[in-house]
Amino acid sequence: MTNTQLTHIQIDNYGPWTVTPEPRREVDLQTLQSRLYADLSQFFGNRGGYTFFTRFDNMVAVSNGLTMDDHAILQESVGNRYPVTMSLSVATGTTPASALATATEQLQDAGSAQDKSRREILRGRHIDEEFRTDEDLRIAHFDVNDATGKYTDQLNEFDTFIRIEQGYASLMKYMRHAYDSLSFFVGGDNIIAVCPELDTGEYRDAIEHVRDDVGVELKVGVGEGRRADEAGMAAKHALEECRATGADVELDC
Amino acid sequence: MTNTQLTHIQIDNYGPWTVTPEPRREVDLQTLQSRLYADLSQFFGNRGGYTFFTRFDNMVAVSNGLTMDDHAILQESVGNRYPVTMSLSVATGTTPASALATATEQLQDAGSAQDKSRREILRGRHIDEEFRTDEDLRIAHFDVNDATGKYTDQLNEFDTFIRIEQGYASLMKYMRHAYDSLSFFVGGDNIIAVCPELDTGEYRDAIEHVRDDVGVELKVGVGEGRRADEAGMAAKHALEECRATGADVELDC
Amino acid sequence: MTNTQLTHIQIDNYGPWTVTPEPRREVDLQTLQSRLYADLSQFFGNRGGYTFFTRFDNMVAVSNGLTMDDHAILQESVGNRYPVTMSLSVATGTTPASALATATEQLQDAGSAQDKSRREILRGRHIDEEFRTDEDLRIAHFDVNDATGKYTDQLNEFDTFIRIEQGYASLMKYMRHAYDSLSFFVGGDNIIAVCPELDTGEYRDAIEHVRDDVGVELKVGVGEGRRADEAGMAAKHALEECRATGADVELDC
Amino acid sequence: MTNTQLTHIQIDNYGPWTVTPEPRREVDLQTLQSRLYADLSQFFGNRGGYTFFTRFDNMVAVSNGLTMDDHAILQESVGNRYPVTMSLSVATGTTPASALATATEQLQDAGSAQDKSRREILRGRHIDEEFRTDEDLRIAHFDVNDATGKYTDQLNEFDTFIRIEQGYASLMKYMRHAYDSLSFFVGGDNIIAVCPELDTGEYRDAIEHVRDDVGVELKVGVGEGRRADEAGMAAKHALEECRATGADVELDC
Repeated sequence: MTNTQLTHIQIDNYGPWTVTPEPRREVDLQTLQSRLYADLSQFFGNRGGYTFFTRFDNMVAVSNGLTMDDHAILQESVGNRYPVTMSLSVATGTTPASALATATEQLQDAGSAQDKSRREILRGRHIDEEFRTDEDLRIAHFDVNDATGKYTDQLNEFDTFIRIEQGYASLMKYMRHAYDSLSFFVGGDNIIAVCPELDTGEYRDAIEHVRDDVGVELKVGVGEGRRADEAGMAAKHALEECRATGADVELDC
Repeated sequence: MTNTQLTHIQIDNYGPWTVTPEPRREVDLQTLQSRLYADLSQFFGNRGGYTFFTRFDNMVAVSNGLTMDDHAILQESVGNRYPVTMSLSVATGTTPASALATATEQLQDAGSAQDKSRREILRGRHIDEEFRTDEDLRIAHFDVNDATGKYTDQLNEFDTFIRIEQGYASLMKYMRHAYDSLSFFVGGDNIIAVCPELDTGEYRDAIEHVRDDVGVELKVGVGEGRRADEAGMAAKHALEECRATGADVELDC
Repeated sequence: MTNTQLTHIQIDNYGPWTVTPEPRREVDLQTLQSRLYADLSQFFGNRGGYTFFTRFDNMVAVSNGLTMDDHAILQESVGNRYPVTMSLSVATGTTPASALATATEQLQDAGSAQDKSRREILRGRHIDEEFRTDEDLRIAHFDVNDATGKYTDQLNEFDTFIRIEQGYASLMKYMRHAYDSLSFFVGGDNIIAVCPELDTGEYRDAIEHVRDDVGVELKVGVGEGRRADEAGMAAKHALEECRATGADVELDC
Repeated sequence: MTNTQLTHIQIDNYGPWTVTPEPRREVDLQTLQSRLYADLSQFFGNRGGYTFFTRFDNMVAVSNGLTMDDHAILQESVGNRYPVTMSLSVATGTTPASALATATEQLQDAGSAQDKSRREILRGRHIDEEFRTDEDLRIAHFDVNDATGKYTDQLNEFDTFIRIEQGYASLMKYMRHAYDSLSFFVGGDNIIAVCPELDTGEYRDAIEHVRDDVGVELKVGVGEGRRADEAGMAAKHALEECRATGADVELDC
């Protein structure tokens, strides 16, 4: 059984800050957001975690292997280097969806995302070392079949993007409701999903759903591990295997 | 009539690079992509342009005010500082969709996105200073009505994100096909669209489409300008006006 | 005659900020400082200017070609993206030393570097386009003869660094007092100096001074230009010429 | 007795790269160097280490607490995100100078810094956890007495910088030869030295040397710890104590 540890990251009171005293230049907001994401990606990533940009003002990290102390250092470091602060809430669950639900609730209990006095909340608990296993995480790496040949080299960039985006919107909603999985667009034609234990048929079902729903053809490699990077790298190799064999689903679990 | 200048930015041969000789660590790809985006955002932005991350390996910039020489400097600078290079194609059109179509075609004519020998292409032309006007750009800034109160503070973060994402997927497709506009998610509950001249009724139609299609309620402020930052800042102020008055569409054109 | 435009950049009230309410983590200060420098380097650099890190809390830029409006955008952008703000003072002079003296005075007139209420000062004026010439700037690029062979590959890294550092300390002081020039260490064994019109004999004199003073052997290429990047690139090519011919001074002016 | 673990970081074949095929734009080199330094500073720093920029193409980190595996991840991550690679050599010693001497030798044994085929060397060994103690590191934090009042607010920025620089050049050389300590300028008027066990008299001697040699007045706080950040933070607090009491040396060991 998986044991996913998720961190809900929320910039404190960000919306109001972006328009106070006047709306701030959009390019500076974009730069701030993407660099903050890059920093989190490195911090979590160099300890084996994965970070997803989601809405940028709210991000989600798979943080198995990171302690609450690690989170505290990150929170302090961001507070020292950015004009904004962030709150962090950590939770675990047998499905990614339930873990995130707990993490978000802990944060909501501390106050609104736009509460001026709610700053630098740090809540939750990490999985104790003794309870961690090599099967804690399942990560699925999806991509679009021949995206370059069918889309990028044929359509204008926005029409290509529409295809990718419709595929993502369909998959992320379906995987959430059918399989308690959290799927994140990570650029190009790639989607990474944090999943509970699912079998080949369930992944195939999701792929078929997306094809029927929006006409986009996906394939997926799935990996398992103690940390996100281990499960994610196994998933990447499984996806390469799909490319080599023409399979639509490849599980390395 | 608008005269949008768009730049299609494409990392050269990026897909193959990410898996050669072995798949590279996802966190490094995420960091690379988001920092490259931040750099482009600053470069275009400090000259009045807007950059959108789109798929990260392909990005789109509204570049009115930037010359081909500016693009050449950017291309060289990225080549000096990143392990990848990028191609740039610049085009104009009376609608954003037609401008991007031309830009992408110019790039496709130079070879495939995954052609090993196609590197650092720089094509197209900027609008000569004498032909630029204060009405060249229309930018619309959408956001979700009371996203914090209805979603962020109520649902778990992924379920909030599903709402935002479904709203975006619906809007970006509709605006493209009905109005030749290019809509980009920019974080939080914000979507920025580059549009031709549209009237209040047409924006209202788009908002109604999204409400009917996926149940997400949007409002929008629209601005006009010679450069993206001018049109975009006017749009932000118009959106603040919506917030103050409860209007769903506010045009400052 | 040269006409150097210099910008004195000063982080507002930085010293007190670094220890309030408690001393902040050194690594965060280092990251903040070096990233701010990188951002300024790109901003000035993409308009043809050069930025030098100097003391990091106080930096100096050669800003010929940048207007006061450019400086205002930069100031706003930094204020939007960093937890600190900065003041900028721009001045010109027939020698770099006199230009910087004026720039600093303008800033000092506005209040102390550690005055809590003195924030985001922007003073001075740029050179009007009509008065700019292709001879406004002289830039000299020094390096140490065979630094890799004599030092890097022979001594421990700190003992190598001592040689480079003693050479720099000697040169920067001498060039300032003898020739009103400002010399900046830019990494490796490289020093870039912003100079008035000096002839071969004067550069040779400086090189001899350093050799006699601290036993470090330098060579130098010198270039001229309308902007720092033009003069600096000419200097780099002149230095390559030294490498090829064994000359110790090469002027391309 | 101290047990300093140092990492010598060297960009592979950097000098030749900067001029191949033509000299690269200085601003891009500056940006590349300072961002690489920022990344290393975060990576080491978030594990308790300190990184010093030294010459930028060669850097030094105090890496007690980091394993060889940590170093390997860092090396891979930089290789994935920069156009250059770097070599890392780790060593320990009873004095910082002897530790760095060993680290550099290990790197030199692998080939020249400008050897085209010598890439991504990773050598040496970290201190095993069981041998680490709370007295492994001594860090001294120097600053200049009343630098703002005497220099920054009085002299032009370059003349202030000359004072700081002459003070640093004098201190770093003396501390190396008299006390096997490595001193690094870290911005503003701050110098951080990694030292063996020295007593108050020895620090006072160094301060007197600098005053006699170049007329710059320093004070110093000294801390001890298992990791650089612990020793360094204790040193910062000791320096604050100097500020409060007027002492010139304060040891918290």
